Amino acid sequence: MILCDIGNTNAHLLREGEFVIESLERFLSSVFGGKVYYICVNDSLRQVLKKRENFIDLESFIKIDTPYKGIGIDRICACKSVHEGVVVDAGSAITVDVMSGGKHQGGFILPGLKAYEKAYKDISPRLNFDINREISLNSLPKNTKDAISFAVLKSLVLTIQNIADGKNIYFTGGDGEYLSSFFENGVFDRMIVFKTLLNTVEELKKGKFKC
Amino acid sequence: MILCDIGNTNAHLLREGEFVIESLERFLSSVFGGKVYYICVNDSLRQVLKKRENFIDLESFIKIDTPYKGIGIDRICACKSVHEGVVVDAGSAITVDVMSGGKHQGGFILPGLKAYEKAYKDISPRLNFDINREISLNSLPKNTKDAISFAVLKSLVLTIQNIADGKNIYFTGGDGEYLSSFFENGVFDRMIVFKTLLNTVEELKKGKFKC
Repeated sequence: MILCDIGNTNAHLLREGEFVIESLERFLSSVFGGKVYYICVNDSLRQVLKKRENFIDLESFIKIDTPYKGIGIDRICACKSVHEGVVVDAGSAITVDVMSGGKHQGGFILPGLKAYEKAYKDISPRLNFDINREISLNSLPKNTKDAISFAVLKSLVLTIQNIADGKNIYFTGGDGEYLSSFFENGVFDRMIVFKTLLNTVEELKKGKFKC
Repeated sequence: MILCDIGNTNAHLLREGEFVIESLERFLSSVFGGKVYYICVNDSLRQVLKKRENFIDLESFIKIDTPYKGIGIDRICACKSVHEGVVVDAGSAITVDVMSGGKHQGGFILPGLKAYEKAYKDISPRLNFDINREISLNSLPKNTKDAISFAVLKSLVLTIQNIADGKNIYFTGGDGEYLSSFFENGVFDRMIVFKTLLNTVEELKKGKFKC
């Protein structure tokens, strides 16, 4: 059995207890023997996968109690694993969601680190820098690379801190481990989406849902 | 006499006491009778303007006391008009600089509002929204358009507020007036860059600089 969380840039796989991150191109050209249980936020890719016999889309089996209209299935899965606290999924975009008493309260979406880098590059070639991940957030930048890195990281950290207001913050996604290092109350959990996928597959196997 | 602050998207002109914003394309095709004193952060455009006889590049005459390497001439001009406080120029990018005792202390660069919108659109068509400028920053978003708008504005406001630490904040640029509305200690001043340009032209006319 293979579990997949398919995003806009990469597919995250849990295969025989091992995590693998694959580009969408590589993922699509891979041949999988057994059943592949997946969620997918990429609409065009989802149409492609629907036609594969051994691929099972879990989206319709997973619900969350929320006032939010149009929340992505990846955010639903991450949030369902957290009863109380803030959930940050840091990938192509950085989604930030608040859970209280097992209910989703709302959330917001910041660009991912790579998206910020591309945004600066698109403004001007003078702003074409990779983010300096060693930047100090305690002193004012003195050059352009640091000015960009500081702005991105300080704005992310302050906004997440503000919404968390002391609650625990659960990070996942490709940049989740890095971002969690800025927070005393931050925990990195690579399994957060997969916990929900695993539970759903178990319930499916028990015949809880009518397919 | 015409004064110009030429950015990466638009040219801001002060012509006979009147402010005009022109697209770069329109600006380049305009015919100006008298002398045009300008600064320009767009390198390729600067090369073009150098060949025009009635265009005078003011950059080499304007200096600031700063430990920052590679600060843009537009930021220098805005900062030179502020002795004490934070200077925010909100255009294609949003530059945030700290002035203390007439000295530039450092600063950082956030993407401009349009650059954020493009960054989201580039991540996924699901995130293709214009920022909702009426968004409340006091309640958690409940749909994707608000989730994006809240994230952009909350992160901008918190980061600028944090660096200002109660000092006055002087806004300029195309989105300066709008952003200033989020700050009790915020002042919008369309003239902030032009004050320095005007002073420099006066000094030039007095023969202060050797051309």
